[in-house]
Amino acid sequence: MDRIRRNERMAALTKILTASPNRIFTLSHFCDLFGTAKSTMSEDIDILKDVLTNFELGRLDTVTGAAGGVRFRPTMSKAEARRIITMLCEELMQSSRLLPGGFLYLTDILSTPSFVRSMGVIIAGQFYDHAPDFVLTMETKGIPVALMTADALGVPLVIARHMSNMFEGSAVHINYETASAGHIETMSLSRRAVQPGQKALIVDDFIKGGGTAKGMTDLMREFNAEVVGMAFVVSTATPKPKRVQGEKPLMLMDVTHGDSPMLSVKPADWLFD
Amino acid sequence: MDRIRRNERMAALTKILTASPNRIFTLSHFCDLFGTAKSTMSEDIDILKDVLTNFELGRLDTVTGAAGGVRFRPTMSKAEARRIITMLCEELMQSSRLLPGGFLYLTDILSTPSFVRSMGVIIAGQFYDHAPDFVLTMETKGIPVALMTADALGVPLVIARHMSNMFEGSAVHINYETASAGHIETMSLSRRAVQPGQKALIVDDFIKGGGTAKGMTDLMREFNAEVVGMAFVVSTATPKPKRVQGEKPLMLMDVTHGDSPMLSVKPADWLFD
Repeated sequence: MDRIRRNERMAALTKILTASPNRIFTLSHFCDLFGTAKSTMSEDIDILKDVLTNFELGRLDTVTGAAGGVRFRPTMSKAEARRIITMLCEELMQSSRLLPGGFLYLTDILSTPSFVRSMGVIIAGQFYDHAPDFVLTMETKGIPVALMTADALGVPLVIARHMSNMFEGSAVHINYETASAGHIETMSLSRRAVQPGQKALIVDDFIKGGGTAKGMTDLMREFNAEVVGMAFVVSTATPKPKRVQGEKPLMLMDVTHGDSPMLSVKPADWLFD
Repeated sequence: MDRIRRNERMAALTKILTASPNRIFTLSHFCDLFGTAKSTMSEDIDILKDVLTNFELGRLDTVTGAAGGVRFRPTMSKAEARRIITMLCEELMQSSRLLPGGFLYLTDILSTPSFVRSMGVIIAGQFYDHAPDFVLTMETKGIPVALMTADALGVPLVIARHMSNMFEGSAVHINYETASAGHIETMSLSRRAVQPGQKALIVDDFIKGGGTAKGMTDLMREFNAEVVGMAFVVSTATPKPKRVQGEKPLMLMDVTHGDSPMLSVKPADWLFD
């Protein structure tokens, strides 16, 4: 390949760094790839750092030390997060989404890549400092958001199931009480999915009473893993308090039951801090 | 903001285009964003096009016509796809992964963002020309790969469930026969998830007899939707043929049952075409 110019390096550098979120690349890696001196590469990195900041496209960090280098973290400003979540709240408040029993149809929102990517970036931004080793979710509807959060954090996703099957190997089962429905269900996770001492970030689509979230924290205790945070797409206004504490929802939902149920969905308070 | 230089534009342009795969951006969009003339923007686009091609980082297409503009498509060369899939096959052939009954533990592979992203890009690359309107999967294990495929294609993901619940609204249920286990199961999908005439790409983690895949095609017929392709992470060597045709697996798995089961996993033949 011919010697490449800074214009070209900037494009390739941007693509490579942003495609592997939260992964540390050494400067040498790029020097080898582009056939460039370290000083030149450092200048490229500085330019990219400023551009990402100025256009609010994420953050480039320089990590010092033996395992040092540069790392891209997807981030979103509070203002942009509020704008997107407010837009989603308005969409969710369409009366056509209200289902019999006061339930809300949000399946489509929860599996549209651009929406779940934004939600994943917003959630990840709250937990980079906690350095979770993996994201934990309970099947099924939270999986896309949880995956995008894990992608932004650069960690694996771990999915708890209602039942273990023969594809999981030996598994840990726990029973948990669904706080709202009040009955006992089973949650299962493969023995090899989590190592003792690891840190878990719980991400799920919905929290009402918090029974499932409580179940996931109990499950992590069985693995001697630590829960460093909990985030949800939607939290119901009632009951309050939940069976878990410190949860971070993106939206708050309130339904007034009755002859014609009234629905309100709004961005969570912390987005306005 | 100060007038920005080409170096800086290249970085921002790359991030914005690659973060929204398969979405068409007008040239004017970027002219407004950067305060640049169309001719300059065109040059930027041409530079980016070449860089992405030279470094095998994806493809930038110029789309002509009234709704024209530029669009980034994640792609992977056959050689790189073979390299990644071969590496995953080797990982899967670790004897520790063989479970009782000749099953294979691949849950971790199927939910590690970087792996499923690569698989999604490889699968999407085979189906851009078919222009699917959505990706369809059956819960649970195929969801991450299916989501990343949908992300690369810039379309929503649709998830069929074993049972409908009150969050789905009215739903279509079909019964299907699991070809391998030979019993009847139910597959369910919300009425509002798919519109008549839409095109579906089926993506799932595993195909053995093809009963579930056949069920998904039957389900799409109920919605008057057309199945334009089927892709799977792993296909078993036997039985052959499957209950569906034209499926595209990434890997082929063969297990010899017996006192000590022998496992072989290799990249699918089409990766060597």
